[in-house]
Amino acid sequence: MDAQEFRARGREMVDYVADYLETIGTRTPLPSVLPGYLRELIPDEAPLNGESWEEVKKDIDRVIMPGVTHWHSPQFHAYFPTSSSYPAILGDMLSDGIGCIGFTWPASPACTELEVSMMDWLAKMLNLPQEFLFSGGGKGGGVIQGTASEATLVALLSARTTMINKLKKDNPQMTQGQIVDKLVAYCSEEAHSSVVRASLIGMVQMKSLPTDDKGSLRGSELESAIIKDKEQGLIPFFLCATVGTTSTCGTDNLLELGPICNKHDIWMHVDAAYAGSAFICPEFRPLLDGVEHSMSFNFNPHKWLQVTFDCSALWVKDSGLVSGAFELNPVYLNHDNQGQAMPDYRHWQIPLGRRFRSLKLWFVLRMFGVTGLQEQIRKDVSLAHQFEDLVKSDDRFEIVRKVTFGLVCFRLKGTNEINETLTKKINDDRRIHLTPSKVKDTFFLRFAVCATKTQVSDVKFAWTVIQELTDSLLSSPK
Amino acid sequence: MDAQEFRARGREMVDYVADYLETIGTRTPLPSVLPGYLRELIPDEAPLNGESWEEVKKDIDRVIMPGVTHWHSPQFHAYFPTSSSYPAILGDMLSDGIGCIGFTWPASPACTELEVSMMDWLAKMLNLPQEFLFSGGGKGGGVIQGTASEATLVALLSARTTMINKLKKDNPQMTQGQIVDKLVAYCSEEAHSSVVRASLIGMVQMKSLPTDDKGSLRGSELESAIIKDKEQGLIPFFLCATVGTTSTCGTDNLLELGPICNKHDIWMHVDAAYAGSAFICPEFRPLLDGVEHSMSFNFNPHKWLQVTFDCSALWVKDSGLVSGAFELNPVYLNHDNQGQAMPDYRHWQIPLGRRFRSLKLWFVLRMFGVTGLQEQIRKDVSLAHQFEDLVKSDDRFEIVRKVTFGLVCFRLKGTNEINETLTKKINDDRRIHLTPSKVKDTFFLRFAVCATKTQVSDVKFAWTVIQELTDSLLSSPK
Repeated sequence: MDAQEFRARGREMVDYVADYLETIGTRTPLPSVLPGYLRELIPDEAPLNGESWEEVKKDIDRVIMPGVTHWHSPQFHAYFPTSSSYPAILGDMLSDGIGCIGFTWPASPACTELEVSMMDWLAKMLNLPQEFLFSGGGKGGGVIQGTASEATLVALLSARTTMINKLKKDNPQMTQGQIVDKLVAYCSEEAHSSVVRASLIGMVQMKSLPTDDKGSLRGSELESAIIKDKEQGLIPFFLCATVGTTSTCGTDNLLELGPICNKHDIWMHVDAAYAGSAFICPEFRPLLDGVEHSMSFNFNPHKWLQVTFDCSALWVKDSGLVSGAFELNPVYLNHDNQGQAMPDYRHWQIPLGRRFRSLKLWFVLRMFGVTGLQEQIRKDVSLAHQFEDLVKSDDRFEIVRKVTFGLVCFRLKGTNEINETLTKKINDDRRIHLTPSKVKDTFFLRFAVCATKTQVSDVKFAWTVIQELTDSLLSSPK
Repeated sequence: MDAQEFRARGREMVDYVADYLETIGTRTPLPSVLPGYLRELIPDEAPLNGESWEEVKKDIDRVIMPGVTHWHSPQFHAYFPTSSSYPAILGDMLSDGIGCIGFTWPASPACTELEVSMMDWLAKMLNLPQEFLFSGGGKGGGVIQGTASEATLVALLSARTTMINKLKKDNPQMTQGQIVDKLVAYCSEEAHSSVVRASLIGMVQMKSLPTDDKGSLRGSELESAIIKDKEQGLIPFFLCATVGTTSTCGTDNLLELGPICNKHDIWMHVDAAYAGSAFICPEFRPLLDGVEHSMSFNFNPHKWLQVTFDCSALWVKDSGLVSGAFELNPVYLNHDNQGQAMPDYRHWQIPLGRRFRSLKLWFVLRMFGVTGLQEQIRKDVSLAHQFEDLVKSDDRFEIVRKVTFGLVCFRLKGTNEINETLTKKINDDRRIHLTPSKVKDTFFLRFAVCATKTQVSDVKFAWTVIQELTDSLLSSPK
């Protein structure tokens, strides 16, 4: 395909994407295919000779679309939102066109420097402490990671290396294994599975501490765990506090946890993967108070800030502690400007290579403006409260946790089993899609306001479907 | 921006990308900016209200382009190629448009299933052993990772967990720390820095073993290291063998290493990040012989197979050993089809979320066809040999290692210092860009055929520039 053909095919693809997103409400959010459906539709091997664009393009509708779960459907209420917007798509197109790999500053200065500036822009939008900014005068700064899982892992590994180095200084005879056997990290019992996964990778013990009845990890729980663990000779070194848990949008008490972490020399990482975007609105920002005590903070603009996946924003107070965990400098990556004004982001992440992801962030921040992004957050939270009101109006149901952001946790009064059956009925029906969770042995349904386009009518539609299927469930013989 | 505006702006961006790539040869590959250039060109914070597309678009040329290193310039010969092609860009556009997150099968069945099929297509193109294929009837299969660094890390962590589980079965009293203190991994001294980095993350000792004079790690070196380490009570568990090292494109001897690994119960991972693409050509495939002994194999279609970053292909013989290292199943990610015909790729990688990356691979494989992709590989290798001939024709220079793929390692006869000076002169000159390396204390220059569009005239141009700067260097007073 030459440039001339690309100009034509690119236009077709732009229209295809616009058509898809304009008409997405006409599709059911969940596909009806069974595992293995696609293999039957395509050849067993790659073609020997190139095919025409026409042949490829017609297969998008024949092969791909029947198996797509439509995350941007206004009837999609599962998991958490994944953002997307036209400005972000344009940014990714430019990123692909430039196609640079920005692992060091000279590998593409613009790629590093735009990211530096965008992370400072974002930090200011969230009113993060100065220590997290490049322009804050210290060692802080932000970096775009692929996902929150990677951000948590980077934070945990940085904390691990920092603590190992401290211990080795005082106890040079201790082996890494002896140290790692004693290291202990903490999170709340409602933290995301990727937090425990980070501890498996990092080979450290992760203790899931109980939350209060609002789903919040409190300072007293943490401190008694620390004291008990220290008495047993363990070495607490890391806390992953969550602001907006996946299950219920619960928020750990940073104002209590932070000072305890600082007192006990524990690296507090704050994971606000979903909820973080809300803190660009001043009315939500108090929920992040206490973040000033943390060593690292992460949220995903690709979840709720109109940026297409992947774009996970991680800030650290001391970037030397991150690069210290990873830095290796082979000759083929050395350059004259190392260690100078601009970071070499390869030392800040697990992968070496990296795309020019800040372009989409830049396009989004400029074309929406802060007020445009705030508007979307406020609309979604308002829709969640409207759904909450609908649930409350039906006394067969109960709300499980206070609604704060765009997530409503609800259930049929009664057993877990009947709620499991209702979840299954809803997803088998396929007109709407949502996912359940379980906290403290209570199984419930999660209704997340996901697609940007979701309107009051969609919320009402979802509730009608849920009520209809509930009627059918409750009236059917056992 | 609504759909209607996107249709117009998307067309503009398609044209911008086509214009950029059509005229890229008119730009110097290296920019002339100094660290910090970009911050001066943009505001300190995000705009309160959204700006127009016109304002954003004009800043691409004003702010971004002056700081871009042009990886797709035919005068770019640094590092290794990063692929890109119009079909791949179209695939990414569709992936962004659909915007699904394919962490489990139901999260978007097409996203998982196309990847399954594409990994089998690719495996067949490379004539990989049946055990690596989903259709091979065993537990094997392939997955798209972001980068080779992540693939190496996933392999190392899988091997680590496998060995720990084996040891704990026989020695339940051993702690993880006691085991990890004894685990030892190997690679060649010319392996990529990301291999050593994986061992830092995995907290295991990594021994860099000496290569022979062709840059190849041989069986005898490995076996004597294993025996010595076992005598000292260490537990060898992992080898990362490289096919096509970054420094010189050296290739470890898989046919010797493989049986030794199998004999000693060591997981052999083969990293062919760059060179792997060449194995779609039958004339290069013998260099991969011995891969049948490996547990995992990785190469980057985003390096030399026309697929835009990121697309790193990892195959494993026993996917249970990979997911076993990572698997956690919270309620909010559970589904009815778990453990059935199709993989849940979230268990195969570090991040949880994942884009629909197989689309760009599908578009590339179909639109180029196997022969189209072979043609590009052969052209690039031929260009490397033409550059080699030019170097050989000038007796001030020497070729450092045999040229096999698209990389030529060469140097001025004489000291490392003079070669360091020549490298600096070339990159300061900015008409071409290349990066150096150092092996066994010998510093040399690397000329990689990178951009798809590189032609004989570009190779000749590069050589003219190098000769001119060499003349100037050698004639200048000390």
